[in-house]
Amino acid sequence: MSKTIDLNCDMGESFGAYTIGMDEQVMDYISSANIACGFHAGDPGVMDKTIQMAVKKKVGIGAHPGFPDLLGFGRRYMACSGEEIRQYMTYQIGAIQAFCKTHNTNLQHVKPHGALYLHAVEDKDAARAIAESILSVDKNLYFVALAGKKGETMRRMGEELGLKVAYEAFPDRAYTKEGTLVSRKEKGAVISDPGLVAKRALGMAKDGKVTAIDGTVIQMEVQTLCVHGDNIHAVDLVKNIKNLLETNHINIKPMGEAS
Amino acid sequence: MSKTIDLNCDMGESFGAYTIGMDEQVMDYISSANIACGFHAGDPGVMDKTIQMAVKKKVGIGAHPGFPDLLGFGRRYMACSGEEIRQYMTYQIGAIQAFCKTHNTNLQHVKPHGALYLHAVEDKDAARAIAESILSVDKNLYFVALAGKKGETMRRMGEELGLKVAYEAFPDRAYTKEGTLVSRKEKGAVISDPGLVAKRALGMAKDGKVTAIDGTVIQMEVQTLCVHGDNIHAVDLVKNIKNLLETNHINIKPMGEAS
Amino acid sequence: MSKTIDLNCDMGESFGAYTIGMDEQVMDYISSANIACGFHAGDPGVMDKTIQMAVKKKVGIGAHPGFPDLLGFGRRYMACSGEEIRQYMTYQIGAIQAFCKTHNTNLQHVKPHGALYLHAVEDKDAARAIAESILSVDKNLYFVALAGKKGETMRRMGEELGLKVAYEAFPDRAYTKEGTLVSRKEKGAVISDPGLVAKRALGMAKDGKVTAIDGTVIQMEVQTLCVHGDNIHAVDLVKNIKNLLETNHINIKPMGEAS
Amino acid sequence: MSKTIDLNCDMGESFGAYTIGMDEQVMDYISSANIACGFHAGDPGVMDKTIQMAVKKKVGIGAHPGFPDLLGFGRRYMACSGEEIRQYMTYQIGAIQAFCKTHNTNLQHVKPHGALYLHAVEDKDAARAIAESILSVDKNLYFVALAGKKGETMRRMGEELGLKVAYEAFPDRAYTKEGTLVSRKEKGAVISDPGLVAKRALGMAKDGKVTAIDGTVIQMEVQTLCVHGDNIHAVDLVKNIKNLLETNHINIKPMGEAS
Repeated sequence: MSKTIDLNCDMGESFGAYTIGMDEQVMDYISSANIACGFHAGDPGVMDKTIQMAVKKKVGIGAHPGFPDLLGFGRRYMACSGEEIRQYMTYQIGAIQAFCKTHNTNLQHVKPHGALYLHAVEDKDAARAIAESILSVDKNLYFVALAGKKGETMRRMGEELGLKVAYEAFPDRAYTKEGTLVSRKEKGAVISDPGLVAKRALGMAKDGKVTAIDGTVIQMEVQTLCVHGDNIHAVDLVKNIKNLLETNHINIKPMGEAS
Repeated sequence: MSKTIDLNCDMGESFGAYTIGMDEQVMDYISSANIACGFHAGDPGVMDKTIQMAVKKKVGIGAHPGFPDLLGFGRRYMACSGEEIRQYMTYQIGAIQAFCKTHNTNLQHVKPHGALYLHAVEDKDAARAIAESILSVDKNLYFVALAGKKGETMRRMGEELGLKVAYEAFPDRAYTKEGTLVSRKEKGAVISDPGLVAKRALGMAKDGKVTAIDGTVIQMEVQTLCVHGDNIHAVDLVKNIKNLLETNHINIKPMGEAS
Repeated sequence: MSKTIDLNCDMGESFGAYTIGMDEQVMDYISSANIACGFHAGDPGVMDKTIQMAVKKKVGIGAHPGFPDLLGFGRRYMACSGEEIRQYMTYQIGAIQAFCKTHNTNLQHVKPHGALYLHAVEDKDAARAIAESILSVDKNLYFVALAGKKGETMRRMGEELGLKVAYEAFPDRAYTKEGTLVSRKEKGAVISDPGLVAKRALGMAKDGKVTAIDGTVIQMEVQTLCVHGDNIHAVDLVKNIKNLLETNHINIKPMGEAS
Repeated sequence: MSKTIDLNCDMGESFGAYTIGMDEQVMDYISSANIACGFHAGDPGVMDKTIQMAVKKKVGIGAHPGFPDLLGFGRRYMACSGEEIRQYMTYQIGAIQAFCKTHNTNLQHVKPHGALYLHAVEDKDAARAIAESILSVDKNLYFVALAGKKGETMRRMGEELGLKVAYEAFPDRAYTKEGTLVSRKEKGAVISDPGLVAKRALGMAKDGKVTAIDGTVIQMEVQTLCVHGDNIHAVDLVKNIKNLLETNHINIKPMGEAS
């Protein structure tokens, strides 16, 4: 029996005359695209083109909504209420759904971006607001939420509402033995060796296993792996991950086709 | 046999801490609401609340997309390409559709706002871009376009694509004998006498007749009348129009229920 | 020997087609105006007109810079670095200075707005960033900072850099016996009785005395009192404060003319 | 007697996480930098860093204000009134002046960006609004305006108000025999051969001569040449221009030091 995993990557983060990411190149190696919706990045033209590209390359399409902070690229916490978060999410999900209709496809998932994702990991009300927004727009959308112990609350908010939750792990991030992400402020939090990252991706995909920073092997349920496509090295890394997974008979598939 | 007309009004133009319009009061007297979508006015919170209110008061819900110019309230022409206009429209229509889903209702119509509307009246490519956007998102949406001779091109762009077009007239605006709006720069372009405006609304709704600025009576197919709700006098005027129409056995109904 | 106090009020918070505040009316009763600079509120047109009005009414002109969050009116904390805060401040102070030059006047003071002000009260780095920005643009500008115990750090950051700091108190806010503001979440935090607010303003201006929420009379050095002008009641209150102060021979003067 | 010319280039057009241009590289070969002011591009952090870099490299600093259209990079005409243009200019010039103070330097010039520049070439009222803004903020600032016949009105609006106007030519653009720029829509409007562009720059700088598209040699008073720095080829081209000019004993100097 073969194993299946999804590779997701942030896409469509360009804006107007500004380009970020190597969307066209990376799109060949991933199975799901988290597409920015115009609040922290992206614009209607970029969304239109990125979805067209994703459809062509058979990549699952996700909304990647963020805080309304283009200047900070959605990486800065903003003290928004749960109500505001729900409304910002709904607006952005709707906007991207319209482009999906334009290209005769369906939205597959929703993954909050940057500081909003981190906030949802920490804050139950934020996580619930996100889940409520998804539910109110389309209960069939996957909610991408953090795998491991740290992500329990975030995932539970989705599951309690009956959403399909896709557990997400980060092959290039170190985990503690408790299964939480090592803070970026600490040494060793980000793993840069491409071979090691690919190997970790394989462990996550094949056995649901991650070697924590102290050497402990921990178990973690994972359905989607987050990869990056900002620069040529990142693209190479995604390619390596894909190759290593396929060599090991792991099917890379959009989360919506996993079951 | 009774006649039917729709009364539409711009709604949901508040933004953050800023309030414009008397939405709650005017909602009692109209049948369709054109709700701003966040580009020229409106925000996710305002959209959420305005749609909730419209649902409660059984008012048909429309998208009211504009140029991306909050500072200018969408009243200034921007040299956007047809492609850009189509994409901006799609984004905004999608955003409002998501809030319709939140409140278990459907979007009824799309009416471009301010400078975008005027541009679509003048420019075939802009009108087509708007119609294409509507078609790509939902072919059952009404496209509100200018009634009378001046609006022919705008309407044709919608009709050629198979859209349902709602012909819109302005009871408080003077028309030339050719059936075009008298420019706001000219004297007498805007009619301020409430009694006269209500009477003109009745003529439009009952007989499809408008008295032009030179006294000629012209024929004009009309399905929806645009009214205003910016201040207490405007609200009174809408109330007067509604009363006069109903006294004369005209049914005021959302355009989507007209047939 | 007569006493002197400054009455400051937020002004110029309108934006594009949106109006907030009763600037024209309240300008008659205050001595210093904190003018929004386009990030949380205000726009170039509003700044231009508000400064013109302030010059005409001999009101001292201040920059009122905020977080870049028009949608949240600058009332939401944003996790900006000290460097970002310094740069946002500098940008906004410069913008308003240019309009001061247009109207042949000088900028008098800088008072951060809303969540940025509160952040500077709590966070030494933010307060220093604000002070550094002011210093880098014009060392003669007054830095308006919170009076009382709670504001010590904020003020010290300004004073250590050699800035003139104007100690600000809030006659409509309750204070603890330690001289800190009672949190808005607690009962009695905001005082709404106009007579009482005016009386408190007089106590602050005349004797530097405030009656704390527990009845203790505390001493507080104060150079400027913050008043509000959002609605007709607020305007009346400002008028009452001015009258009571003048009846008691307190000179109301812009902070820049106080000495 | 040696000749002098200024080489100006657009700089500081990055925004938040987005990078445009190769500012650091190109700064070595130019004498004046037109720095975006946050409306069409640029942000407070970018302005701060770009001015710091310009000071270090002894490059003259200019404001490069544009229409408030980040999404369109200021390249789209917006129907702003003269009053609005004047106010937008003043705001942006003030903002950049504050960063000049931060870095103990002075603003040298103002050059409107993109669609605003083109609008000022065509529209007397827009040109006057720009000139009035400059005058109101600092009458010693240079106003960069189009050289040749086409730019006459734009320049006159500045000169009539007593501003110092720097006549600007474009070595990579074809001119008609009447001395106007060949429209970008026409073939041959943009010259891409680096050697030819450098040679044209030399002709402009040395003799005030330009060979028009029909072969006619026309005379044109020029004080500053516009060059580009968007990509590595553009940077090479600037370098070539600088080298060719210096080999021919033309001094490359900021416009403010020309006399």
